[in-house]
Amino acid sequence: MNKEQIFTIFGGTGDLTFRKLLPALYNIEASDDKVFCPRVVVIGRRDYTSETYRTMAREWVEKFARLHFKEETYQKLAERILYYRMDFTDEKEYGGLDSFYKKMGAGNHIFYFAVAPRYFSTIVNGLKSVAGAEHGKVVLEKPFGEDLSSAAELNRTMESFFKPDHIYRIDHYLGKEMVRNIQIIRFANPIFSNVWDAEHIECIQISAMEEVGVETRGGYYDHSGALKDMVQNHLFQILTIVAMEQPGSLAVEDMHREQIKVLRALQVPEDISQSMVLGQYGGYREEPSVDRNSSTETYAALKLSVDNDRWRGMPFYVRTGKKLGRREMQVAVVFKSPAPGLESNILNIKIQPTEGVYLQFNIKKPGETEEIIQAKMDFCQSCSYVNRMNTPEAYERLLGACMRGERSWFSQWDQVETSWNYVDEVREKYREMGLPVHIYEQGSAGPEAADALLGRDGHSWFD
Amino acid sequence: MNKEQIFTIFGGTGDLTFRKLLPALYNIEASDDKVFCPRVVVIGRRDYTSETYRTMAREWVEKFARLHFKEETYQKLAERILYYRMDFTDEKEYGGLDSFYKKMGAGNHIFYFAVAPRYFSTIVNGLKSVAGAEHGKVVLEKPFGEDLSSAAELNRTMESFFKPDHIYRIDHYLGKEMVRNIQIIRFANPIFSNVWDAEHIECIQISAMEEVGVETRGGYYDHSGALKDMVQNHLFQILTIVAMEQPGSLAVEDMHREQIKVLRALQVPEDISQSMVLGQYGGYREEPSVDRNSSTETYAALKLSVDNDRWRGMPFYVRTGKKLGRREMQVAVVFKSPAPGLESNILNIKIQPTEGVYLQFNIKKPGETEEIIQAKMDFCQSCSYVNRMNTPEAYERLLGACMRGERSWFSQWDQVETSWNYVDEVREKYREMGLPVHIYEQGSAGPEAADALLGRDGHSWFD
Repeated sequence: MNKEQIFTIFGGTGDLTFRKLLPALYNIEASDDKVFCPRVVVIGRRDYTSETYRTMAREWVEKFARLHFKEETYQKLAERILYYRMDFTDEKEYGGLDSFYKKMGAGNHIFYFAVAPRYFSTIVNGLKSVAGAEHGKVVLEKPFGEDLSSAAELNRTMESFFKPDHIYRIDHYLGKEMVRNIQIIRFANPIFSNVWDAEHIECIQISAMEEVGVETRGGYYDHSGALKDMVQNHLFQILTIVAMEQPGSLAVEDMHREQIKVLRALQVPEDISQSMVLGQYGGYREEPSVDRNSSTETYAALKLSVDNDRWRGMPFYVRTGKKLGRREMQVAVVFKSPAPGLESNILNIKIQPTEGVYLQFNIKKPGETEEIIQAKMDFCQSCSYVNRMNTPEAYERLLGACMRGERSWFSQWDQVETSWNYVDEVREKYREMGLPVHIYEQGSAGPEAADALLGRDGHSWFD
Repeated sequence: MNKEQIFTIFGGTGDLTFRKLLPALYNIEASDDKVFCPRVVVIGRRDYTSETYRTMAREWVEKFARLHFKEETYQKLAERILYYRMDFTDEKEYGGLDSFYKKMGAGNHIFYFAVAPRYFSTIVNGLKSVAGAEHGKVVLEKPFGEDLSSAAELNRTMESFFKPDHIYRIDHYLGKEMVRNIQIIRFANPIFSNVWDAEHIECIQISAMEEVGVETRGGYYDHSGALKDMVQNHLFQILTIVAMEQPGSLAVEDMHREQIKVLRALQVPEDISQSMVLGQYGGYREEPSVDRNSSTETYAALKLSVDNDRWRGMPFYVRTGKKLGRREMQVAVVFKSPAPGLESNILNIKIQPTEGVYLQFNIKKPGETEEIIQAKMDFCQSCSYVNRMNTPEAYERLLGACMRGERSWFSQWDQVETSWNYVDEVREKYREMGLPVHIYEQGSAGPEAADALLGRDGHSWFD
């Protein structure tokens, strides 16, 4: 990548741009690494000039950028930001955009679609009027469709114009420090790699607990729900990294090949009532823009089976939900108990808000006793100020990767497709059986049925 | 055990009694456990009464007991302490001791020989005049002989009078909290037990570093040396616990059986110059009571091979020495590097002065990099005040075990015998080859030749 890149944001006056993208661009500018921030074109309908936009953007950057705000650094970024006013939903306006680019001079395009998916095909059609756009990269935000068929439709639209390997599907969980760390922890440590299978592990739990409710996103969320909003993308991505075989190399193709194998080995359960629990927090139906009779789930817990030699017979449990009293994402690896009555070794990879590793193992209780207690060790990657400052945020990381053409940490189409296929199937089975969406109390850990889901196997959620 | 036990200390006015045995008896008295402190008979040549002895002992207990000194508790102990004045080197005086016991009333004897080994056979002969003494237990301090033949002689003396399973050979390292913890850490944790072999471990290092020199013990030490004083007993005991197969049960016989198998699998190296380094700290020959031309080693490092299926081909390194700049005993388990250029996983069991577990494994360095760094986790068992107070000292633990008749944590004769056999052989080979006792600087980590010992295998001492 080089300075000749032109980074265009559709939706340049939206929340994502202000809170995430511009601060990420500032951090990239301020970082002492080899990524050079490109020229930036921000597209919006509102009546800004580049000057007024830069002044407004300055406040957001100052507020949200990870790295210390320096006027000089911001000005180096700002002078490369151009605001272009247009209605991106009107294909006729893209001729003007083409002229604008031509005045800017040559550059390789990166288009960031920070807008609702229903506009994607309009933008793609519009870009047909922009010279060289079809050679550019495109960055998409989730949701990648609402189900398998809409996702496939969306993908056809994108691939009709962009090259498949120029399509960057952002899963911002893949930009998180500890998600990237999972494969290092797994493969670079004999104490873990030698016991990373169903023979030695009792169960693996992936939890993404949210403290907040739907807030202002009720309209979107009520048409989506926890399965589509979290499980199909983020949790399945993490699951595949936890469960995949060691890739033959660091090349993106090798890693994706192993991840997709895991997704394809996911077994759709015969009796979904024993494998999935959906819930909705009390009061959800009174949230703004939510259907008063909504049956959308704000909580989902699944028991998953990966049918391959490494994992056959061992349950993966995933859960996510809103209004669960805390914000916490983690992967807990619960090893088999070494003997009756002994606690399990537990490796807990903490993804957010704390980044780190927790390990629990058995030692003798001090004193004149043979009683066994747990040694609890905590390695907090994000605890020191230096580390907190050193950990790039997900968007910064992912934008940098896109600029460099590194595709490992983006979702491939076949992953999206296979995940949707699974989620569609279990949703349909759940609906067909007439299973309830359990109402749970705000601030609780979710519906009691989700505890029973594990309780049947003699397990419980690790907290 | 019960109150009917009579605990007799030969050497009742010696340092060990004041610093270790009496404080240990106080701690046992003060502890809220099921051990009841027996009646205590202290034997010495000096002219004390029970009253004056108790008053003197009070100061030592107050100074050295682990648990908070309470007058009331001490008085409960003190009223059971009787001082008996006699010359224990004179067999004729034991008739009087017999009468003294008879006046005390019936009791099961425990005799603690806190005297130099040259007096053992005299005491045993004297005890023939004491009714019921032959049914008692006897507790011995190291050294158990000066070599295999003197140890065997000593053992014959003891076994000629006492039952073999009534002979308790104190190895105070076996009373240490973290030494007892080794087998729990090994066998109760799948993350360690599954990789506890030569296939997964690069080397195991057992280090006992002393900060002090010979101090006032020059006369004894100059006839002993590091191999006899530390390696033959303490380090070999720890080695066998680290290396043994899992005992079939917690029964003492099962554990000893596995330990002795390890000792018997120790290979005497063909070329000792590649497997052992002896050293002497500069200035040792000027220490009080040390021969001015002494070649006694104050440092020993050995590379050991355990020839069985679990350990074949993997080196155990042990080292111990005086004047090494720090007091520190630990077992470091260095796992094989998972890939070229990657650091090893390291499990470090810290025995003294800090008690705890240190674990080092690989994680990704935070930030936009794939660089791997080490996560370092420390579990300090002795760091909290509560734990420091809760950890019985070695003597307290071992005396309590002896009173209860628990023999697991004492040295068995066949262990002593097999250890001496090995140490005699390697000493002799070293001497035959005319290998030097390397002079090392006080406060250094020992002779450079000890680094080369590991360097030849591509290893280095873990510090």
